[in-house]
Amino acid sequence: MSHPFKAVTLIGKYMDPRMREYVEALAVLLNQRGIKIHIEMVTAEKLGISDIPSVAMEGVGKVSDLVIVLGGDGTMLTAARALLDDHVPLVGINRGRFGFLTDISTDGMLQAVGKILDGEYTVEQRILLGADIVRNGRVLSKGRALNDIVVSKGGQARLIELEVTIDGQYVHRQRSDGLIVSTPTGTTAYALSAGGPLLHPTLEAIALVPICPHTLSNRPFAINSNSTVEITLMRADDARVHFDGQLHAELSMGDKVIINRLNNTIPLLHPLGHSHYELLREKLHWG
Amino acid sequence: MSHPFKAVTLIGKYMDPRMREYVEALAVLLNQRGIKIHIEMVTAEKLGISDIPSVAMEGVGKVSDLVIVLGGDGTMLTAARALLDDHVPLVGINRGRFGFLTDISTDGMLQAVGKILDGEYTVEQRILLGADIVRNGRVLSKGRALNDIVVSKGGQARLIELEVTIDGQYVHRQRSDGLIVSTPTGTTAYALSAGGPLLHPTLEAIALVPICPHTLSNRPFAINSNSTVEITLMRADDARVHFDGQLHAELSMGDKVIINRLNNTIPLLHPLGHSHYELLREKLHWG
Amino acid sequence: MSHPFKAVTLIGKYMDPRMREYVEALAVLLNQRGIKIHIEMVTAEKLGISDIPSVAMEGVGKVSDLVIVLGGDGTMLTAARALLDDHVPLVGINRGRFGFLTDISTDGMLQAVGKILDGEYTVEQRILLGADIVRNGRVLSKGRALNDIVVSKGGQARLIELEVTIDGQYVHRQRSDGLIVSTPTGTTAYALSAGGPLLHPTLEAIALVPICPHTLSNRPFAINSNSTVEITLMRADDARVHFDGQLHAELSMGDKVIINRLNNTIPLLHPLGHSHYELLREKLHWG
Amino acid sequence: MSHPFKAVTLIGKYMDPRMREYVEALAVLLNQRGIKIHIEMVTAEKLGISDIPSVAMEGVGKVSDLVIVLGGDGTMLTAARALLDDHVPLVGINRGRFGFLTDISTDGMLQAVGKILDGEYTVEQRILLGADIVRNGRVLSKGRALNDIVVSKGGQARLIELEVTIDGQYVHRQRSDGLIVSTPTGTTAYALSAGGPLLHPTLEAIALVPICPHTLSNRPFAINSNSTVEITLMRADDARVHFDGQLHAELSMGDKVIINRLNNTIPLLHPLGHSHYELLREKLHWG
Repeated sequence: MSHPFKAVTLIGKYMDPRMREYVEALAVLLNQRGIKIHIEMVTAEKLGISDIPSVAMEGVGKVSDLVIVLGGDGTMLTAARALLDDHVPLVGINRGRFGFLTDISTDGMLQAVGKILDGEYTVEQRILLGADIVRNGRVLSKGRALNDIVVSKGGQARLIELEVTIDGQYVHRQRSDGLIVSTPTGTTAYALSAGGPLLHPTLEAIALVPICPHTLSNRPFAINSNSTVEITLMRADDARVHFDGQLHAELSMGDKVIINRLNNTIPLLHPLGHSHYELLREKLHWG
Repeated sequence: MSHPFKAVTLIGKYMDPRMREYVEALAVLLNQRGIKIHIEMVTAEKLGISDIPSVAMEGVGKVSDLVIVLGGDGTMLTAARALLDDHVPLVGINRGRFGFLTDISTDGMLQAVGKILDGEYTVEQRILLGADIVRNGRVLSKGRALNDIVVSKGGQARLIELEVTIDGQYVHRQRSDGLIVSTPTGTTAYALSAGGPLLHPTLEAIALVPICPHTLSNRPFAINSNSTVEITLMRADDARVHFDGQLHAELSMGDKVIINRLNNTIPLLHPLGHSHYELLREKLHWG
Repeated sequence: MSHPFKAVTLIGKYMDPRMREYVEALAVLLNQRGIKIHIEMVTAEKLGISDIPSVAMEGVGKVSDLVIVLGGDGTMLTAARALLDDHVPLVGINRGRFGFLTDISTDGMLQAVGKILDGEYTVEQRILLGADIVRNGRVLSKGRALNDIVVSKGGQARLIELEVTIDGQYVHRQRSDGLIVSTPTGTTAYALSAGGPLLHPTLEAIALVPICPHTLSNRPFAINSNSTVEITLMRADDARVHFDGQLHAELSMGDKVIINRLNNTIPLLHPLGHSHYELLREKLHWG
Repeated sequence: MSHPFKAVTLIGKYMDPRMREYVEALAVLLNQRGIKIHIEMVTAEKLGISDIPSVAMEGVGKVSDLVIVLGGDGTMLTAARALLDDHVPLVGINRGRFGFLTDISTDGMLQAVGKILDGEYTVEQRILLGADIVRNGRVLSKGRALNDIVVSKGGQARLIELEVTIDGQYVHRQRSDGLIVSTPTGTTAYALSAGGPLLHPTLEAIALVPICPHTLSNRPFAINSNSTVEITLMRADDARVHFDGQLHAELSMGDKVIINRLNNTIPLLHPLGHSHYELLREKLHWG
């Protein structure tokens, strides 16, 4: 059998005390198969690993045809945002409770990764969202998200007021704690807590989920993934925009957040037999 | 400008006392333009109209390249199910409060229809769902729906227990009052009352919305429209399946309801400038 | 220490194959303490127990100062409705997964019941609701419920239309699948599935929880327990009223269901250290 | 008929351009009836009214047996918190869209107030909540609220983690955007947006409504109004506590917010025939 992957980079959440051990075990496996191996630079430094060539995050996509991420869903979100432009496939490994994105447990890690290296895997293409933050007609900054872009009030407890258009059509003016614009991937995260629906990860859709809306009929809404969502801050004494839960910028009245699906997708690899429904059953205590 | 439509059939909700008047006004308009006109047979009989050629519902698609439906959303649902195989476009006219499907008011009816006959309209392709009701491996009956297919308990107030698979993958076993499988069109109807999300009418998706599920995390779920949803009755002292709100069959333990998107779509015509968001604002008291 | 209870009656869910064993173990315990013991008549017959004096359900309250119920919450609901007028305290024992009302497990049953017989227990007074079903001004029948009284549609899938008044004040006209009128006890049952809030079991309140209401802002509503709730069927092609999940009567247009808190309460005994919050954590997977 | 009120103070929202006109019209009415009249000091200054004796907010309760508040619900909340200890009755007058607390419109103001002065009114006693903010065992500050006390995350978008006890019993540990502890009065405000139930204003209850809880079964919960709710911040990189929507304090890990119903109530006067249900119908678009 041919080995589909020739060069693998490892990215790890360095706060985990056993992370070095996991990384080294994977390195042994990869070496045995003659696969070129890199380790992401910050991971290498923090774990004190110097015998594996390291590479800065922005170079990872250039030297790898597969990236293995060890950590929680948060680590995976960071990697996906960084590696999107290189369209390099990701595998997620989790310790203890597995996550929605990191569905391989460290327990059976070597066997599961071995099979993926053998070509026994399925691929899911996950979409990401990008946004321009626009003030007075000028783009202040840009951001991207695998889970969600959230425009919300800050700590002053006044609601904010947003005007939403989709593809240039006026939707409504909303008073709320904020608005979550979520990929299908993000619908198992914050959007779910805010009352949003689950969207299958491969659905070409974007979910708009209001947070504590003043008008009770302002219900979650899913639209085509190729739509443009424009959010204008109509009243914002203290408003913010976050990407995947990271504070990105403070917003002022009149600011716009213009959101589009990014062209590239992130290929997420799963062991054969992987079931998104099994993840839902496990993590949501179904049945 | 060429006239895109050569033959129009009128279908009306005959319980409305002013329906005859509306039909006749439309007939005048169509005659003036030299468009061939039919009236659906039951509509003709009930309204006592004999000077316009009538045609049975099953023949409407053969003699028309446009169908005008006067009535509420219910009348439109019936027409769409009947005319799907002929892929003939529909226009909906409503009296008083307009509906989600019948978005032209009788007040400005002649002008709005005139423009559509002039070719000034937009088209939305709406998907329908079909289901096979299967008992002991044999198809008992089939049905189709523009809004939703609902498997639910009857009047005995015991919950039912369903097993759901999607594309052959086991999803979960659910105890609830029932399960709504809805098109995007149906998400403004019963699915919304049950806590489901709004899906844009053109999203290629199906929503699964549980009715009063025993497990609180059994949240509404949207999947790709080309998925197969299979519902097996695991406990059903008194269970039913409805299509667009019409009782279709009583179900017994072990029965399956196998649901797929139908191949054809119904082209729904709207006046230029039509906005689905305006409908939502109006009917859901947004803003 | 004095023994507060002199006469105990046992009621059991006879479908459970080990029920006879449990009943006999409890009988031994009670005999050892010199407590007079009865067994409810149907329980005795079904389990084939003839060496303990039996008593019909309607007489249980006369011969006992404590009733021990073995079974699930359903068995407890039946007992509570039957024994309300005698105000006799109940203890609930459950096998396997314990319930909200039956919070003693069969595993530690003898020790837990022993302590209760020693006087080591806490008491919660649970309220019940009663309803008159009124047609054309005449009371057709009466019913009572420890969990809930539910007016709902039958199997024909048309919604029903209800007019609700509270203490003679008009509240609203509601189109929905039905309306749940729940005691605090019932708020962990059907009302919870329908989106209702949890009410602490000792709160003097009644919850009104609409089932799939057409108007999205028809939210669950809690009122004082001494209020009178009057529900009039305004449109009811196929409507029903259930008490604690048992079908009670079919309803027609114009029928009224007039609901009041019953004067008596059911004293529910718990082992010392019992925590309602622990039940919630356990059964709702909190934390 | 005797005049029950001998001394009235007027409090007005001074941002309203017509406020001076309303205050003067009320002053004429009160003078005609020989009622002593004061105007709250800040209101007098802002409106430039110097011919009516003014009184500082903290003295209002000493010189009045009725207080008339002109403004929105926000003005009323401020007045109620300030006047609670004096137990002086309030009447609320609103301009344009009336509020839940200010149910007399400026349009029919003189007639409605006249009737109340004639003794034609009903009284609702509204409860308030008080909280101690405790750090390292010492009370940092105290606050009170007519609507709600909210512990929530600030603008950093990380959820917070709270431990909740009720009357000393451990309830659960909650990860969420925050927790709303609401009076019945507050259940039509922020708590409603967060998915909480409506509680009748006179119900002796407190509602706990989680904001976007991580665990989906963390449902709104109503408890007896005489319960003590203790919230401990277990993880709080950026947490706050608000009273009636006003930022009160930033909180750190380990801080406690200890909440009790205050002993006094605020008497809210309504015209005869006032119906809370009518307010709900109007403001929530029921029916």
